[in-house]
Amino acid sequence: MTTIPEALRALVDSGPLAHVSTVNADGSPQVTVVWVGREGDRLYTGHLHETVKVRNMRRDPRAVISVEAPRVPGRFLDEYAVLRVRATVTEGGAWEALDGLAKTYVGSDVTFPAPRTDGGFVVWYDIERIGGTGPWA
Amino acid sequence: MTTIPEALRALVDSGPLAHVSTVNADGSPQVTVVWVGREGDRLYTGHLHETVKVRNMRRDPRAVISVEAPRVPGRFLDEYAVLRVRATVTEGGAWEALDGLAKTYVGSDVTFPAPRTDGGFVVWYDIERIGGTGPWA
Repeated sequence: MTTIPEALRALVDSGPLAHVSTVNADGSPQVTVVWVGREGDRLYTGHLHETVKVRNMRRDPRAVISVEAPRVPGRFLDEYAVLRVRATVTEGGAWEALDGLAKTYVGSDVTFPAPRTDGGFVVWYDIERIGGTGPWA
Repeated sequence: MTTIPEALRALVDSGPLAHVSTVNADGSPQVTVVWVGREGDRLYTGHLHETVKVRNMRRDPRAVISVEAPRVPGRFLDEYAVLRVRATVTEGGAWEALDGLAKTYVGSDVTFPAPRTDGGFVVWYDIERIGGTGPWA
């Protein structure tokens, strides 16, 4: 398993939007933009429902997560990370995961506004390759 | 061809990073983050070399472009656009395209710093479906 460099940990923990790319059953690309969390060297996303993306990753665990670093006006190469990952879809715990992420993405006192449930899906991502532009690439 | 709504035109013209998702020959997803331009209702990217992404789009024109709107602290749903597109790879003109985009992405007086060439590739994108969160979705 790939160790996440410190600068990339800091970026992920700061709450960037994660562009999660998977492949549909017909071979076309599928992208959704979601919140992402980190536990050690693994990333995760929470999904209340079995969306196309979740079904795609059940069928084929190969995915890519791309995130942008904060933009700096006038900088020639904006920093970003492109992570080739292997996804593991687990059942349950989506609300709890999203409620935790809401503290990062919205505000420290925010409760995730959907009805609390034990169901849904948490997808875990093992990083296989780190690319992009920045101190992590 | 899909007409780009005014709010999405404004977002694209403001110089967001474009996450371009394609599919590799082995069926895995491929993502690169690049500058994107617009001419009417079509988008384009410039590539000095025949990269994996360019080869992928030659083989299969189905791609997705995702862009973020500027983030607003404390907003629950950050705005972004996910565009399902059909790519057409054309030869030549990459430097000129990138030099034009440098004016938007870096600064109005900036010349693209790579050696000028007539070669490379410009990829044009016809939008087939607009998704995401925002006034365009």
